[in-house]
Amino acid sequence: MKRIKIDVQYKGTNYSGWQIQPNKQTIQGELQEAIFKALNEKVEVVGSGRTDAGVHALKQVAHFDTETKFKPDKLWAIINKFLPEDIKVLASCEVSSDFHARFNSKRKTYIYNFYTSLVDLPLLKETFARIRTDFNFELAKKACSAFLGEHDFAAFCSSKTNVESTVRTIYNLELKACGSNSYCLSVCGNGFLYNMVRIIAGTIIDVGLGFINPNDVPDIIKSKNRSKAGKTASACGLCLKEVEYNDL
Amino acid sequence: MKRIKIDVQYKGTNYSGWQIQPNKQTIQGELQEAIFKALNEKVEVVGSGRTDAGVHALKQVAHFDTETKFKPDKLWAIINKFLPEDIKVLASCEVSSDFHARFNSKRKTYIYNFYTSLVDLPLLKETFARIRTDFNFELAKKACSAFLGEHDFAAFCSSKTNVESTVRTIYNLELKACGSNSYCLSVCGNGFLYNMVRIIAGTIIDVGLGFINPNDVPDIIKSKNRSKAGKTASACGLCLKEVEYNDL
Repeated sequence: MKRIKIDVQYKGTNYSGWQIQPNKQTIQGELQEAIFKALNEKVEVVGSGRTDAGVHALKQVAHFDTETKFKPDKLWAIINKFLPEDIKVLASCEVSSDFHARFNSKRKTYIYNFYTSLVDLPLLKETFARIRTDFNFELAKKACSAFLGEHDFAAFCSSKTNVESTVRTIYNLELKACGSNSYCLSVCGNGFLYNMVRIIAGTIIDVGLGFINPNDVPDIIKSKNRSKAGKTASACGLCLKEVEYNDL
Repeated sequence: MKRIKIDVQYKGTNYSGWQIQPNKQTIQGELQEAIFKALNEKVEVVGSGRTDAGVHALKQVAHFDTETKFKPDKLWAIINKFLPEDIKVLASCEVSSDFHARFNSKRKTYIYNFYTSLVDLPLLKETFARIRTDFNFELAKKACSAFLGEHDFAAFCSSKTNVESTVRTIYNLELKACGSNSYCLSVCGNGFLYNMVRIIAGTIIDVGLGFINPNDVPDIIKSKNRSKAGKTASACGLCLKEVEYNDL
């Protein structure tokens, strides 16, 4: 038995998120089906974390165990033959049997893309969220530094969650203009609560729209109260960019 | 009768190009149908130029004549109600009756997007062309300056064309890295021959792949011989970015 690590890119638009669910198209489900077709083995593909319906990944990381005799670093090409166009394996390699895509991840980076327009733009609508045109970029940028460091992010967590600790560390958070009227928020941390990136993005956007004062953001974090933070920004703007591990 | 200028964005993936054709889905056809549904008038929508099947536009410009009583600067919203998600009018305004979207255009800017990968990437495949991974960016950049200025671009024109003059002026041409393993070529000129941007992009890519020596590009231009230039790069990477006019 070998443990295989795969890097996966997907456009989440047409999927009900990562996690396999009955009668729904999911990323995990498509991967498991493609691996079954490619290797004739039923495997469980374990991701670094779930992504919600409509969320994309530039490079999600996952692992699975297999008895296959195909070379581990060629598996990506074989599996891709059985995957749809909007999910592809970028690379594959053998890892130690104690590697775990979820439990061993040390840092994750997400990007949240959005644009201001009166119209849903055909070239952006699948991977950028659209927001109101009175967005003030300079004001929104003032909200960013408050999130850095270790905090209890209970205020930035969907009430649907049930985790032991809501303390997480954010190493980096940057809001940049990335084209005319479009913006990219990049967030790197040691882990993220359910909907945390989307609520952080929604709060920063609400600052830029004048609904939240940037000076109030530290108190919103301290409140640990979900209702004080901004909206949950829509899923289509979110993209898992990178998952980092200690030396494999 | 009023003449209306519209700015239009489209993702060309699912269309047989700009120009209306029987039994095909085209951008011009969809616009004319939407305007018919919105205004109950059969109009001819005249674009700044045709775009090929699969080519996109961030901002194509077009005009049409109408008897409508709707305010010209509100027409975009009314027409959009009848357009598919991948074609949208960004803005509309009344222009003088001697404005012509095609004959009055002074400068056009196209971008050509491409990336290197062994895999068709789900998040790029619709708007970026995929090329071989042994692309040398620095070498490709050396090919760019030869295109600047006024030249007879007969070598960079599909043989299918039939125009009076193949002389055009390129004001600006820049190749930039725009993300990991992805690149963007931006070309601004007073006009472009049929397939000209795609053949220029294909030639610069062929230089980066080692098939053409960058020092030979001036001679390829001088040859006026299509067979000396590089391949016609695939349509999906091409996007019409801007059409400029003198004061309206």
